[in-house]
Amino acid sequence: MNYNFIHTYVSVDCVVFGFDKENRLNILLVLKNRDKAQMEKQRRLPGSLILSDEDVDDAAQRVLHEITGIKKMVLKQFRCFADPNRASDPEDAKWMEEEYKSSIDRIITVAYLSLCRIDQKMNSTKYDTVDWFPIDKIPNLPFDHNLIVKESLIEIRKWIESDFTIIFELLPKKFTIRQLYQLYNDLSERYIDIKNFHKKIASFNYIIPLDEMETNVSHRAARYYKFDAKVYKKNNTKLIK
Amino acid sequence: MNYNFIHTYVSVDCVVFGFDKENRLNILLVLKNRDKAQMEKQRRLPGSLILSDEDVDDAAQRVLHEITGIKKMVLKQFRCFADPNRASDPEDAKWMEEEYKSSIDRIITVAYLSLCRIDQKMNSTKYDTVDWFPIDKIPNLPFDHNLIVKESLIEIRKWIESDFTIIFELLPKKFTIRQLYQLYNDLSERYIDIKNFHKKIASFNYIIPLDEMETNVSHRAARYYKFDAKVYKKNNTKLIK
Repeated sequence: MNYNFIHTYVSVDCVVFGFDKENRLNILLVLKNRDKAQMEKQRRLPGSLILSDEDVDDAAQRVLHEITGIKKMVLKQFRCFADPNRASDPEDAKWMEEEYKSSIDRIITVAYLSLCRIDQKMNSTKYDTVDWFPIDKIPNLPFDHNLIVKESLIEIRKWIESDFTIIFELLPKKFTIRQLYQLYNDLSERYIDIKNFHKKIASFNYIIPLDEMETNVSHRAARYYKFDAKVYKKNNTKLIK
Repeated sequence: MNYNFIHTYVSVDCVVFGFDKENRLNILLVLKNRDKAQMEKQRRLPGSLILSDEDVDDAAQRVLHEITGIKKMVLKQFRCFADPNRASDPEDAKWMEEEYKSSIDRIITVAYLSLCRIDQKMNSTKYDTVDWFPIDKIPNLPFDHNLIVKESLIEIRKWIESDFTIIFELLPKKFTIRQLYQLYNDLSERYIDIKNFHKKIASFNYIIPLDEMETNVSHRAARYYKFDAKVYKKNNTKLIK
């Protein structure tokens, strides 16, 4: 055998996006108790080595379940990260040795995007701490996790452009048009005028006005809406153009 | 160590697209001399195990160079294929043993798209036979290569939608508007009317009419055009909308 060929562990890492009450995009970072004595750098993207009988999508779904307790979440593979030096930091090597009880010199990871309502109660079976971090306040992360987060932002924008309805995975079940607009504007590559946005939304029969208005707000109370996936599927108006 | 974690070889496989004179989309398949005695199934996507000091993008670029002799080609990673059974066919296992002089039970591959002018002379350093196959005439391929080809078609459509100018990597240096239209129509998810297409194209200052017409054609001779990448970069009109 030509030993120049790689023979390696392969992992999945998940960037889970959420949208908070201040209308900021957040991602999930995890921490285990044994990490707590160590530096803040131990905050990391949730991930795992894949099992010998597992496909990568299944491994990502397992990781998401380990964080949230949810069986099946929206997910999208977006890139394999394989820089030969991505796990060469001695601290990262030490962490892997503790986590996997083995010396690992190189590791390739397949990165996934996922979406989660930020008010979702987390029932993690694996992590002691699962926290949301606004994307402009992500600490230094181990391995190339900061690079993965950076690339995931480009990917989530492309995802929204190709399938507008994934936006409803991030919003509360009832939402105002302003919330929808702010999230869309944060995520879209294109700026869209609020008036045009209102017109567009009014033309979408799968965005249903409710008989309920905001309460306890300082501005004029806005109406709540809901997304009707069934109506959408019938029509399949894919994109805001 | 928990031996349930995968420890594996990782490869890259490349789907190289070309566009022939009958305006059909083609892909490149390769064959080595020693394969010739064997069944036609030995036609395969060009690929390779990645080296121990190599990133995946570099491995894909190396594979493309081994096929075409071109140092740097347009390429785009699109998905990791990791079904535990993707290399379990005994014939595929036998092929791997001959190719890599080792018994390989599982292999994960990272798939890439690339684009090549079909009149490009191939200077392969590795393969005896490098042939174009129209996408509706792809034979049975080993491993999950037929699935990879199928998924690559979805991906190239998305790629064209997000960056219209990659279409010029497929066209001859001088092309007619009909050629451009046919290729765009083949690749786009949306049907576009030929008249509207002409209007759009006329508005793009980076598509330059030449003082040269088709010759020896049975229909009315059409004008040739060229793509001016410099003018395009200045303007950056990304998409046909």
